[in-house]
Amino acid sequence: MRLSLACLAKPILHGYFRSSCSWRVRIAFALKGVEYDQLPVNLIKDGGQQLTEEYKALNPMQQVPAVEIDGITLSQSLAVIQYIDETRPGPRLLPADPKARAQVRMISDLIASGIQPLQNLYVIQKIGAEKMQWSQHFIDRGFQALEPILKQTAGKYCVGDEISMADICLVPQVYNAERFKVDVGKYPTIKRLNEALLEIEAFQVSHPSRQPDTPDDLRA
Amino acid sequence: MRLSLACLAKPILHGYFRSSCSWRVRIAFALKGVEYDQLPVNLIKDGGQQLTEEYKALNPMQQVPAVEIDGITLSQSLAVIQYIDETRPGPRLLPADPKARAQVRMISDLIASGIQPLQNLYVIQKIGAEKMQWSQHFIDRGFQALEPILKQTAGKYCVGDEISMADICLVPQVYNAERFKVDVGKYPTIKRLNEALLEIEAFQVSHPSRQPDTPDDLRA
Repeated sequence: MRLSLACLAKPILHGYFRSSCSWRVRIAFALKGVEYDQLPVNLIKDGGQQLTEEYKALNPMQQVPAVEIDGITLSQSLAVIQYIDETRPGPRLLPADPKARAQVRMISDLIASGIQPLQNLYVIQKIGAEKMQWSQHFIDRGFQALEPILKQTAGKYCVGDEISMADICLVPQVYNAERFKVDVGKYPTIKRLNEALLEIEAFQVSHPSRQPDTPDDLRA
Repeated sequence: MRLSLACLAKPILHGYFRSSCSWRVRIAFALKGVEYDQLPVNLIKDGGQQLTEEYKALNPMQQVPAVEIDGITLSQSLAVIQYIDETRPGPRLLPADPKARAQVRMISDLIASGIQPLQNLYVIQKIGAEKMQWSQHFIDRGFQALEPILKQTAGKYCVGDEISMADICLVPQVYNAERFKVDVGKYPTIKRLNEALLEIEAFQVSHPSRQPDTPDDLRA
């Protein structure tokens, strides 16, 4: 592992308190003990601050998060998390064993490609009035697949007994599920893991209820 | 890199000729020179062979691909590709430099989380009659973001001059775009990269028109 001079500048996270993908990156920074600055992008205010030309230059996908780090700008939370893992000291976010790494990535991608994209703001805006039912359908579909997989891979956490990128993806997805009134109690392994993870400081300090841009009525 | 005894058994790819995520895995195997067996799962026939209890046990998400490899079963194509890369000799599918790796993952995830999931069969089946318009909208939205990113990162291929996982994601997504009648000519960098990549044997032998389950009328 090699730390270049650029690492001395604090990374900047362009995110939104309630965005599950922004939360993933906040958890990764917290687990690694990396200090960073937050520049909030309000996805609702002014018709969506992610739609400005200024933000589009930073992330052409017009989504959060985008992270300025070591002289480059990265979007896509899993790419950011793995970059942090590969360039910063601290606890590994992906296990050393290739099979366990693959399981961590499988679970992360099941959430990041199979569930979350279907509740993305720009998707549910297109769905319109049925967005609650739509989101519930696809979260339930995803959790029905995730539950038996986690039953096989989980120990104390999603894959074995070490916290990994899979856990970083799970907790914000459960938070989303609760926002969309999915009964998480139907998925005992997901529920147990989520509760265990929420006991950990890195998941608490990064929580949507405790961010600089959290509105007062949602603040913990 | 350590090859265990289980590596001596050929991996089994459960896929579908036209699935863009199955094609990604076929390209990775071809680039690495890994021999594998294919067990086709017809997503249309019999109401969808991915919906059987037998297949659900293999991949609870009821999607292709699923890969049996080294004694474990993996789903999620990017997890499979990175596992192949980390355990098999042959050309790297992710560059050695952490920043370039992060850019490869960013582009891969932009496609795998930001574009492809919205054309997944189980999603467009729910969209119904408007599925063509829906798919075009989200592919265009994604390509509008991908084009300026690739303009910055690309050399001969998506990131610099070496083939990577980003290229493995790009070509099947362009194939999908063409199926949904998106005018790819609007995106000159995407078009150029796709054409260059389709010249390469690994992209040709893995093409949907040349698989064991390709119907005769679609065979090249």
